[in-house]
Amino acid sequence: MKLILAIVQDKDSNLLSSEFIENDIRATKLSTTGGFLKAGNTTFIIGIEDKRVYEVLDIIKKISHARQQFMTPPVNMDMGGDATMSYPIEVQVGGATVFVLPVDQFEQY
Amino acid sequence: MKLILAIVQDKDSNLLSSEFIENDIRATKLSTTGGFLKAGNTTFIIGIEDKRVYEVLDIIKKISHARQQFMTPPVNMDMGGDATMSYPIEVQVGGATVFVLPVDQFEQY
Amino acid sequence: MKLILAIVQDKDSNLLSSEFIENDIRATKLSTTGGFLKAGNTTFIIGIEDKRVYEVLDIIKKISHARQQFMTPPVNMDMGGDATMSYPIEVQVGGATVFVLPVDQFEQY
Ligand code: NI
Ligand code: NI
Ligand code: NI
Repeated sequence: MKLILAIVQDKDSNLLSSEFIENDIRATKLSTTGGFLKAGNTTFIIGIEDKRVYEVLDIIKKISHARQQFMTPPVNMDMGGDATMSYPIEVQVGGATVFVLPVDQFEQY
Repeated sequence: MKLILAIVQDKDSNLLSSEFIENDIRATKLSTTGGFLKAGNTTFIIGIEDKRVYEVLDIIKKISHARQQFMTPPVNMDMGGDATMSYPIEVQVGGATVFVLPVDQFEQY
Repeated sequence: MKLILAIVQDKDSNLLSSEFIENDIRATKLSTTGGFLKAGNTTFIIGIEDKRVYEVLDIIKKISHARQQFMTPPVNMDMGGDATMSYPIEVQVGGATVFVLPVDQFEQY
């Protein structure tokens, strides 16, 4: 048995939850903040048999990996009050930090 | 020293907290969600000397084990608008998932 | 790689966050409650290379160690409705409980 702690962006957490349920992986969700950004993120606690660790890691990677996304920033007003054109810019979203921890004992009551 | 992570139903968490305090067991509480149900649950983080692990597990088992409970569902209205009798049904409540983790180093400042 | 779990008082958590950022230490913050007091506290999850564990512990100790502080209690009214003098008293604030956990595998996606 291993304990997996996975920290992902809030925006990926619902899809990741669904994927875990679909694959019969029990995950407990914590609302967390931080890293360098103040942005909200979600930490999943997952208990899993040793032989399924890579299956869990693959799902986390597939759903939550860091990727570039185009985003149109809100319209700017210049000093004279005129709206300037706003062009789409590329931003990074997603990303996951994952720890696999050894477990001495696992119980269900 | 071991770190115990115990995930229990919200409805058992206050009683479990009291039992920990009574037995001089320091526990930190996290509000969590998930598992297969969307229902709220509580995760306890407990740091404990090796020789008291079984004492902690016994308390968690005693307070939070899964058990059957009779519940009367809310009154149903049938198509014609008549209230039908509502009979008590048996539902499972409680349950605990517990991980005992090895600790390399423990400090108090 | 180690996983450090540090439980500190809420009042020390912002300063500790800033110190972690300044030293390029990634920390995820959880809002937690408990211990013997019902008071709110904050749990930090930190992933760090083995050789930097002591650096992290030093920062936690420096910012969050238990210390005495003088506090003036609110004014008391005696039975006759007269305000009695309120003298500063010494109270303990701060304090940190820290677990260093072994990590089997660490991934970033
Ligand atoms: Ni992709
Ligand atoms: Ni019972
Ligand atoms: Ni000091």
